[in-house]
Order: sequence, then C-alpha cells, then structure tokens
Amino acid sequence: MHETWTTVVGNAATRPDFWETAAGVAVARFRLAATVRRWDRKSEGWVDAYTSFYTVWTWRTLAANVAASVSLGEPLLVHGTLRVREREKEREREPEKAQQGAGAGASTGAGSGESGPRRWITAEIDAVAVGHDLTRGTSAFRRVSQAKPLSNVPTGATTL
Amino acid sequence: MHETWTTVVGNAATRPDFWETAAGVAVARFRLAATVRRWDRKSEGWVDAYTSFYTVWTWRTLAANVAASVSLGEPLLVHGTLRVREREKEREREPEKAQQGAGAGASTGAGSGESGPRRWITAEIDAVAVGHDLTRGTSAFRRVSQAKPLSNVPTGATTL
Amino acid sequence: MHETWTTVVGNAATRPDFWETAAGVAVARFRLAATVRRWDRKSEGWVDAYTSFYTVWTWRTLAANVAASVSLGEPLLVHGTLRVREREKEREREPEKAQQGAGAGASTGAGSGESGPRRWITAEIDAVAVGHDLTRGTSAFRRVSQAKPLSNVPTGATTL
Amino acid sequence: MHETWTTVVGNAATRPDFWETAAGVAVARFRLAATVRRWDRKSEGWVDAYTSFYTVWTWRTLAANVAASVSLGEPLLVHGTLRVREREKEREREPEKAQQGAGAGASTGAGSGESGPRRWITAEIDAVAVGHDLTRGTSAFRRVSQAKPLSNVPTGATTL
Repeated sequence: MHETWTTVVGNAATRPDFWETAAGVAVARFRLAATVRRWDRKSEGWVDAYTSFYTVWTWRTLAANVAASVSLGEPLLVHGTLRVREREKEREREPEKAQQGAGAGASTGAGSGESGPRRWITAEIDAVAVGHDLTRGTSAFRRVSQAKPLSNVPTGATTL
Repeated sequence: MHETWTTVVGNAATRPDFWETAAGVAVARFRLAATVRRWDRKSEGWVDAYTSFYTVWTWRTLAANVAASVSLGEPLLVHGTLRVREREKEREREPEKAQQGAGAGASTGAGSGESGPRRWITAEIDAVAVGHDLTRGTSAFRRVSQAKPLSNVPTGATTL
Repeated sequence: MHETWTTVVGNAATRPDFWETAAGVAVARFRLAATVRRWDRKSEGWVDAYTSFYTVWTWRTLAANVAASVSLGEPLLVHGTLRVREREKEREREPEKAQQGAGAGASTGAGSGESGPRRWITAEIDAVAVGHDLTRGTSAFRRVSQAKPLSNVPTGATTL
Repeated sequence: MHETWTTVVGNAATRPDFWETAAGVAVARFRLAATVRRWDRKSEGWVDAYTSFYTVWTWRTLAANVAASVSLGEPLLVHGTLRVREREKEREREPEKAQQGAGAGASTGAGSGESGPRRWITAEIDAVAVGHDLTRGTSAFRRVSQAKPLSNVPTGATTL
C-alpha cells in the first residue's frame, strides 16, 4: 500500500538536531507541536483544543537548510509522509538505523520504570518540504547554490 | 492553528466497535493497519517496509454504515483529521469522554507493569469519509435513506 | 518537485468509461463532482457553496473494479495525485497517450467556436485508491482473487 | 460535502498582487507553478514530467506577509483548500466578489477569440499556510507582532 501523506502546521518544539550518518548523509531532526484551535460558539472565539507532537526527519540539502534556518518556537509548515512507530528500545542516533532512512526517534514515548519494558510510540514525518509559516511573520529567502547535482532523492529510493 | 488532514489506505485490524453516547450520538471505532510497501531495486519487486496503526473514529450516519459494512481485514480508505494523543489512564468507552468528540481510544499504547504509571500514545483519525478500497475488490453500494435531515455536522461544531 | 496529493469526496458525475490500452493495460475514467457545503450562520444550516469537477483516472485492477462497482451519482472518496492540464487539442482515447500514463482527458474545457484554437484546462486525479463513501450508505465488499501477481505498480514507475 | 485539502510544492510564477477589499480585508494573490519530476529508469535520473498551475489566494495577516516576503520564482510550499472554478467572464479585482471569499481569479484560462464566449477554468487554492521551501535554500523568519487580536478566521466563517 501507499505512503500516508500529510501536512502539519505547527511550531518547532525543539531546535533541529543535525548530524551526518556514517554514509555521509546529512540529517536534521526536530519535534513539531501542532495545536488545533476550534471555534467556540459559546464564547464566540477560538480556543485551544489539543496539541499533537510529531518527530520530523529531514535529509540532505533540506536537512542542512532546516538546521541553518529553524529556531525553537518558530511557526512551521511541514509536508511529508507519516509513520506511526513502535519501538522496544530507544537508541539515540544509532548510525546504522539512521542510514536506513528513518533513524532513531526522539520519542514522546511512554516509558515505564526501571524494571519494565521500554516501548515507545512516536508519530514521525519524513519531510519532503519544510517552510516558515507566513501566517505568523515574514521570511527572507536565500537560494542555496548547488555545486553538485541535486541529490534530494526521496528516502525510499535511497534506502532500498 | 489548523486541523491536520490525512488519508490512510490500509486494512481494518479490528471489527468496528459500535455504541451510542449518553447524548444519543452513534459512534463506531476501529483500528486501521497501514502497511507501506516500497520498490526494492535489488529484487526488482515490492517489499513491506513497515506498518502504522491508527484508531479511527466515526460518528452518526457514517458510524452506523461503517458498523454495518466493515469486516475484519477488509481494505479501507479513511479520510479525516489526525490527532496524536497521550493519555495517563485508559478508560474504555467512557461515556462523558465520548460525548466530547473524541472518546476513549483503543490504544496500541505502551503500558508499563502493574505498579508503573499508565501512559499511552495513540494516533487517532476523526474520519469524515470511509470507503472500501476498490484496488482490492468490488463493492456494491446501497444508499441509506434519511428520514431526518442529515446531521453529519463536523465533530468540532458539535462539541464546542 | 513532488507529486501533489489530494483526496476528494464527491459523486460520480459520469459512469466510468473502461478500455484497454494498446499495451493491454486496463483504464477506467470518470468525472467526479465535489460540492462543498458551508455552515451558514444566518440560516443556521448547511448550504451548497460551489462544485468542483475532476477527471479521475484509474489503472489495472483498480480500473476493473471501478468499472464493475461505480454507478452514476454514487458518492465516492478518491485519493491520488493531482494534475492541472492544458491541452491544445482534444483527442479521446488516444492509445499512445493512454499508454503513457495519463491519457486524453474528458475535458470540462472551455472550447471556443469553430474557427478558434481548442485549448482545454482540466483538473485530473491519477487515483491510487477509490471507495464508496460510507457517509451516504452501506457497501458490501468482495475481494477479487488474483491469479497473477499484483501489478498495481504506480503509474510513474510504469511509464518511465 | 467537505473541502478538498491539498499541499502544493512549487515556485511563484508571478509576484503576489496585493490589495484590500472594500470591506478592508487584505488579499494577496499569485500564481504557483508545480513541476513534477519523475525518476527515469533509462537515464537513471530525474526528468521533468509536467507542470501544473494554480492561483493561490491568501487573506489578512498571511496576505500581508506573503506580499512582503515572496518574490518571483521563489520556491514555496502552499497548504489550503482546492477549488476548480469555471467562470463565464473575467473581471479582475471585482471588490464585491473578493469580499465573498474567493475573488476574481487570475486565469490561465482558455479564452477564445473576439466573438466567442469567454469561459475559464482555473484551479485555485485558498491558502491557510504558505512558506518558503527550505529544500531549495535558507530563510530568515521574523515574527510579526499583532497589535490587534488575530483575525485569521477561515474564509468560510467570515463569508457566510
């Protein structure tokens, strides 16, 4: 079956974490908080209904530009494929995982105590485009020149 | 900010669970498994990459028709708004919760042992449309007559 | 850049037109009408706001099942990639075009008079999943057995 | 039925055109070109497949920030509701239309000669969020302070 596409409008809940995989692929990862507001008939105003959190993964040129452009709390628009992951153990920045196109997630997960099993559920977005949301402010764009041919191949194509 | 819309193509991982809230609103809930397949260059074939699970909520006429039409394992197409929820305790079918437009989730969650805290993360879809996926088979449709005016008001409008 | 994904909830405005390309690929095409309704504060009720029309393309097993299942006027849920096309001439069912993964569109287009040039704009969806919308009625699903391996390869993979 | 949501990744094909309606609502409109690229197995590279054009409408604070931030040719990410419109006559910037939430479109339309009827088809996006695509470069964001309460009410809520 097909990838699940989605677009989330939210705010950066962490700074982007940037590194390179053992294979030399740039990765940037951050948490995105999306607070839904609904119209309240009684108060005739908008109220916060709930907040969802996502782990956003970016790759290659997009990763480098996200790391250079996104600060904590800034409003963002993220478009990509969604994945709900369950993992038994949490291993941060595990290189061979990251190379496989998804990496280890910054989990919001429901860890138990010391003795219990560690299982985590995260909602992750493998982003193909990210931008500052102009609903909240202005942005000055600067195109990045590409000395080498664009390598923004979709993750799936690379990893299989 | 805005609702996060998504469309998931998958299979019913449970039968729909159907009930009415104390306020008389019909609800049907089921789990949806979405297995993403990717093209494997080496084997020149499609391989299963991973499976995401969602809890799908439907309401009113849609809930009644889902309960009457959907069987375990059937391929489905679900369109609605996405919410990633974290809850401390799990209380199934809690009526006053369900009335508030979201209800208690069938969690995939990562519960710990007896003594630990119970925290769950679920990815939930508040569906506005559900259909059998014709990629996998045929379907015979029968329109439901509506004695009373269509009350398929979006959840948000009702619950606030 | 990336495909533009969308999901349209609407009604079949034509019966599906079904044929095979010269290469033996099954195709079904139909028009989809999507009428948006909005909440009218004054009348406290839902009113029709506008209708958009799309040409929906389906392929292979999905095409066969759409042709076998969808009747004029039935409510549908269509998920796929969107394309806004402008064409100079209209050539229906042109085989070599259809083989190339898009085919000749059933245009809503704005044709001029006899002497003028023929230019058409259509909004087309290359569907990966189609289903009857259970918001409007019930459906009985029957899985289609597959004697040969599933050949539901995305259009893009086939045509390039 | 429901609005059709979509996200388009493309480039500004015109500068944003900015004005205020008679009712004092800020509007910015521009054309967006979305070129889809596909992987070509033969050449083992990405090739341009086709380009779709959209008319993007923005309102209020988003309109002001789009007008202040977006230049011709810049890469953008646009999220909103899609509408395929057919109109008999083209009247630019007609104030009472614009107040009604959609305005007069910058048409790509297929106009005929002098004597023929004027009919236009346009694909329009009523945007709720717009951002520079960080896949192509960096952006410096500056939050806009809001002296008056946020009036970014969805168009539908205002116009009905």
